[in-house]
Amino acid sequence: MGKDKEGKTNFQLKVPKGTKDWAGEDMVIRDKIFGSITEVFKRHGAVTIDTPVFELKEILAGKYGEDSKLIYDLADQGGELTSLRYDLTVPFARWLAMNSNIQNIKRYHIAKVYRRDQPAMTKGRMREFYQCDFDIAGTYDPMLPDAEIIRITCEIFQALGWEGRYTIKLNHRKILDGIFQVCGVPTDKLRTISSAVDKLDKSPWEEVRKEMTKEKGLDPAVADKIGQYVVKKGGDDLLQQLQKDEQLSANESAKAGLSDMDLLFGYLRTFGVLDKISFDMSLARGLDYYTGVIYEVVTEGSAPQTSEGQALQQQGKKESKPKKHASNIDGEEDRSNDPSVGVGSVAAGGRYDNLVSMFSGKQQIPCVGISFGVDRIFSITKQRLAADSSAAPIRTNEVDVYVMAFGGKGFEGLLKERMDVAKRLWDAGIKAEFSWKVKPKLPAQFKAAETNGVPFALILGDDELAAGKCKIKEMGLPSDHPEKDGVLIEMANLEQEVKQRIARQAEQASLVDGLKKM
Amino acid sequence: MGKDKEGKTNFQLKVPKGTKDWAGEDMVIRDKIFGSITEVFKRHGAVTIDTPVFELKEILAGKYGEDSKLIYDLADQGGELTSLRYDLTVPFARWLAMNSNIQNIKRYHIAKVYRRDQPAMTKGRMREFYQCDFDIAGTYDPMLPDAEIIRITCEIFQALGWEGRYTIKLNHRKILDGIFQVCGVPTDKLRTISSAVDKLDKSPWEEVRKEMTKEKGLDPAVADKIGQYVVKKGGDDLLQQLQKDEQLSANESAKAGLSDMDLLFGYLRTFGVLDKISFDMSLARGLDYYTGVIYEVVTEGSAPQTSEGQALQQQGKKESKPKKHASNIDGEEDRSNDPSVGVGSVAAGGRYDNLVSMFSGKQQIPCVGISFGVDRIFSITKQRLAADSSAAPIRTNEVDVYVMAFGGKGFEGLLKERMDVAKRLWDAGIKAEFSWKVKPKLPAQFKAAETNGVPFALILGDDELAAGKCKIKEMGLPSDHPEKDGVLIEMANLEQEVKQRIARQAEQASLVDGLKKM
Repeated sequence: MGKDKEGKTNFQLKVPKGTKDWAGEDMVIRDKIFGSITEVFKRHGAVTIDTPVFELKEILAGKYGEDSKLIYDLADQGGELTSLRYDLTVPFARWLAMNSNIQNIKRYHIAKVYRRDQPAMTKGRMREFYQCDFDIAGTYDPMLPDAEIIRITCEIFQALGWEGRYTIKLNHRKILDGIFQVCGVPTDKLRTISSAVDKLDKSPWEEVRKEMTKEKGLDPAVADKIGQYVVKKGGDDLLQQLQKDEQLSANESAKAGLSDMDLLFGYLRTFGVLDKISFDMSLARGLDYYTGVIYEVVTEGSAPQTSEGQALQQQGKKESKPKKHASNIDGEEDRSNDPSVGVGSVAAGGRYDNLVSMFSGKQQIPCVGISFGVDRIFSITKQRLAADSSAAPIRTNEVDVYVMAFGGKGFEGLLKERMDVAKRLWDAGIKAEFSWKVKPKLPAQFKAAETNGVPFALILGDDELAAGKCKIKEMGLPSDHPEKDGVLIEMANLEQEVKQRIARQAEQASLVDGLKKM
Repeated sequence: MGKDKEGKTNFQLKVPKGTKDWAGEDMVIRDKIFGSITEVFKRHGAVTIDTPVFELKEILAGKYGEDSKLIYDLADQGGELTSLRYDLTVPFARWLAMNSNIQNIKRYHIAKVYRRDQPAMTKGRMREFYQCDFDIAGTYDPMLPDAEIIRITCEIFQALGWEGRYTIKLNHRKILDGIFQVCGVPTDKLRTISSAVDKLDKSPWEEVRKEMTKEKGLDPAVADKIGQYVVKKGGDDLLQQLQKDEQLSANESAKAGLSDMDLLFGYLRTFGVLDKISFDMSLARGLDYYTGVIYEVVTEGSAPQTSEGQALQQQGKKESKPKKHASNIDGEEDRSNDPSVGVGSVAAGGRYDNLVSMFSGKQQIPCVGISFGVDRIFSITKQRLAADSSAAPIRTNEVDVYVMAFGGKGFEGLLKERMDVAKRLWDAGIKAEFSWKVKPKLPAQFKAAETNGVPFALILGDDELAAGKCKIKEMGLPSDHPEKDGVLIEMANLEQEVKQRIARQAEQASLVDGLKKM
């Protein structure tokens, strides 16, 4: 590494716009979230794959419609043209197409994706952010993988401590298409009218109607018919109501979609998660490639925090629509403090049966999946932890024992002895630290242990060592506790004594709930 | 996602050159390696940070000397100019400089880095590859953090099952500089002569001498003096020999370095790792920024596999020198099968006390660290596992129970019952799967369980269910085992019965060694 010829600080010391460093408590919270999610995936037999952070440019080309302009390209330095991945779905489809021996897989992938969008940092919208995708590829009996994905989603939010605080909005592309057909939408307008419906979570019907009729040239009578359907939401009752709708039942697409939903609702009831669902006819999802069931998870905090809105806002805000502010992509405006920017849905997905064939040509692998917005989940979790006064302070390291020494006049620091004890603890797999000072002061050693929340101090002294003993002290005991000043243990049983105490404390800690109390 | 307007397969379906997908067994092995390494870091109180995959271009500028041409730039699409990170050290130094409240930290970081180098895939050298860095920043008493890094390195290779198969080559920049000064190297030639010495692990002294004298204009007499020193290697004995060298002892730099080494050797003895060390005067390390102790870990397989070499080859090959083939960066030559490309050292690092101030200007934070070449470690581990016929097959998922059903004539598949049992198991935190077929055949269900190495089958049948029971069968029991056909358990105690059996099996499995038997 040569010298910085430009001098030392003649440029701004910062990370690129829309990116951030993770450290300290944030890193710990994020790792716990990843851990909780991964545990649920593994419980359902999922495996993980890892794809390169950049793909050939042509792999991403033509996959993201208008949002393609948000793709980060690498500079042409000779050789292949490549771009940073925009999501984890296209790389997964590319991987499936390249590995034709794999006809089915449950895979999860937690990794960073890149979008040259206008960042809104405090709301969890970044240019570099994590996605956590789970997808099931393969040909199975109808709605069984779909039901398991909903079940997995519920297990994940339960593991995160969100029980009772989230709703899974559910709809079906075939039902939507059937409704559009029944109402008289021309075939070539199906997708664009679907996109308009997708805005119902943040615009009132009147505005969406205007978009359909004025911008997209739909017959107002057709729009009004659509309006009667897409405001409906409910559960089993809504499904029964739609099934009784003679016009819909006569439509092939709607009929197939309703039959799927009927099956799905039964499976969700068996899986004990039907009460987490809202069958929401206004849910359309932006991406073109969905072919069946679609879903989106909203929670408190998903909704924008302004009063400027409509009743529909209460059901949460859809994923950011980058095109709205694409004109200002590289402007200096930071929308971090713009309260109209909600964190959006915290997870979303659906069935996409035709994506893999875009790469493989001949081969078709049906897929259904969900993507968790883990940065958004992080933001909400962090806010909740901050608001929870009963939450224990978050430790950033996991050290169990701080090895210290003390002595009177002529005290030489007992460095070799501290190192020797640390070595014994490490050899036994115990997490331990000691001061990197030859002659540390006792208060400084205690302070180091306390700052990091280390639960045990192991205190060496000349007299105790001469007697083959040392003192172990549990930190933070009340002043009237009999073991407040620590207890003497035999150096010969050091590892065993320490392990027992750590295990006992861990047992007590496991009685309190995991993530909420971390 | 719009349609691919270019058509379906009119481009090559591949990942960018020098990158790869990770899946299946490779992914499992890699995750186990990351897990083993992380466990050791945490045992020593380390925390992790995560920095963006790209940095402002000017942060990386002027840090990598000639190798700067290997940096991947992002395209200028308006806004800031950025580049993919080349290593994890510069981002760490940048982070320290930006967070002046942090005066000391033990941090690890496992993440991908990017170099537009000529790939040699099978040897583990890629354009996108993982690095695993551990660094200690802060002001402490001399050589204590340095000693702990060596100790951590030894714990890691022990955890990976490499005991007795690796050597840590050790040297000190101040000793090297002292030698050069004592031999009469002009001050302005110190670094370039050091670079020449760095090649001694793959070139004979005669060649290095030629580079010094012919290319770099060093007085041949001076080169010969250097030659007497840099071929030396050993342990404590070599240290004592150098300490007795009157010329060296009279040199300030050498004296300081020897004093450091004396201290370090004592600490390493206390930590029980002195026998892993080779004090190697030819070790110089390529990067300019080291200021103290330097080290490099070599192992069987680090050495190039040709016979074209010299005796020195046996001690392992240094990290790839990209400049050697930079002229062909984007050529189509793939050196995957070139046996002269060894996997290089598997870990390397040293003390760098002046790097942070390149960013912070005023503030100086001394650092010492090591970088593990985890892709290389992966390649070697995989080869060893493949060669180890006693290694158990690697499971790619972790499912413990496969829930199946069987029945005679009129069998309806017991789908609801299988789903209900799966739900109960998931609720209890048990990893379980069932067939996503309404009426699966029993052999197909057994095959699915066997293919994935699932240890237990839970078999539902009409008669058993009517009696409130089901059958649990441990897979792979020998044909004369009394429980070979499974045992009936009460449905009421389902979760408990299953958990007990999983725990019992895990206990037996933990008796065999972790990584080697996975």
